[in-house]
Amino acid sequence: MKDKLIVGKIGGNVIDNPDLLNTVLDYFANLPHQKVLVHGGGILATQLAEVLNIPQQMHEGRRITSAKTLEVAQMVYAGKINTDLVAKLHSRGLVVQGVNGADGAYIQSEKRSVKPIDFGFVGDIVKVDGERLARTLSSGIVPVFSAITADLEGQLYNTNGDTQASEIAMALSDFYEVELRYCFDKPGVLRDVLDPSSVLKTLSITEYTELKDKGAIYQGMIPKLDTGFRALNNGVQTVILGGTEVFNPIQTIHTELVL
Amino acid sequence: MKDKLIVGKIGGNVIDNPDLLNTVLDYFANLPHQKVLVHGGGILATQLAEVLNIPQQMHEGRRITSAKTLEVAQMVYAGKINTDLVAKLHSRGLVVQGVNGADGAYIQSEKRSVKPIDFGFVGDIVKVDGERLARTLSSGIVPVFSAITADLEGQLYNTNGDTQASEIAMALSDFYEVELRYCFDKPGVLRDVLDPSSVLKTLSITEYTELKDKGAIYQGMIPKLDTGFRALNNGVQTVILGGTEVFNPIQTIHTELVL
Repeated sequence: MKDKLIVGKIGGNVIDNPDLLNTVLDYFANLPHQKVLVHGGGILATQLAEVLNIPQQMHEGRRITSAKTLEVAQMVYAGKINTDLVAKLHSRGLVVQGVNGADGAYIQSEKRSVKPIDFGFVGDIVKVDGERLARTLSSGIVPVFSAITADLEGQLYNTNGDTQASEIAMALSDFYEVELRYCFDKPGVLRDVLDPSSVLKTLSITEYTELKDKGAIYQGMIPKLDTGFRALNNGVQTVILGGTEVFNPIQTIHTELVL
Repeated sequence: MKDKLIVGKIGGNVIDNPDLLNTVLDYFANLPHQKVLVHGGGILATQLAEVLNIPQQMHEGRRITSAKTLEVAQMVYAGKINTDLVAKLHSRGLVVQGVNGADGAYIQSEKRSVKPIDFGFVGDIVKVDGERLARTLSSGIVPVFSAITADLEGQLYNTNGDTQASEIAMALSDFYEVELRYCFDKPGVLRDVLDPSSVLKTLSITEYTELKDKGAIYQGMIPKLDTGFRALNNGVQTVILGGTEVFNPIQTIHTELVL
């Protein structure tokens, strides 16, 4: 039987709130399994870009990454957030290794197709080297990934953190029984987005399609759930979405995706 | 017999010059030995601090690191420079791992004593875990260290890169025959600082003391040479100082320290 491994994803809402972040890291550090953390950005990158007078171009709510914006992302995600998270988890007794860009040759990305829209330095993951990552994990290290990835030529890219978590989870499913946990700003997937108590215990692909068609699930939740179902369809054992409690060893409320 | 390992240190003068940097990285990548790279800062941190209106306090030419200055150092050294160097070496066919702050639990620092001067978030290295680092090296990874280190409580510090390279070299000398190579802005240690052709082929501790007393060696060269001789006195086989050619497999001009 394979060992259990948890791939956790935390978003900007947690990173921007020091108290919440400490709670989440306490939970995460205490999970009695091998683990991987993937983190997103938060408001710091936007703030720094503003102070540095770097214009932010958006297309349908998605940021276009110019060379200057990539530099800011590198500095904030890899320099500030990743290094902070590694040090915080280290102080909780873990041996941690930040993974940014080409680190460890774990992830290979490529520039996203310029059609229909050129998103600039936005990369899509081509390959996660699960074997290499499993070797690192087996030495007792907890890898912490920022959303900065690289191609073979050494070009860095801004990458979607939810997709990254899902791709890592899939690549590791040959070696571990993988549980993918998304920590976001809701206690789970809501039947009614205005009612935080309407958390769905489970969400099947059929229900998901229905809720999408009704407009009850929309915007950022759609790519997040798509990556979740993709993981579930590709070897990942369990996919859970929830609030900060999603890493609480005594889990209460959250949504589990089911096929 | 132990395998040979090269610990290279590059400073700001190389990092700030893209052409020079590419040459140095070409040489470094082609060295036919296991290797570690340690890098310093360059002007980018100073420039960013200026744009962000963060005042720079100095004491006898040494920077006092405030919380805001540390954040800038983190973003520039760990986020920008380290991630760039890793990607550039990766594109040259190496498997590279950036090491910043608490990464890998390789280096433990502590805040520098506040007497006689409180340098703020400046850390001194307490311990390098040579065994752990040797394990990583034996898996074929080239570690690239920025001068950001951490203590056990997860506090990050700005650390002297020359000292870091020397401490790493010493810690690895139990496992490897270590050669420490400092790449700086002169072709070697000069008998006459105004004459670039006066490179000393070798420099003994006696000659060093004489040249210091005469005032021919001064300022930043003193701590650099002190860390070099310290390494040579503590198990490191060879210590070399030179310009960008110091990583050229066909080395010509440089200074070798001798006891």
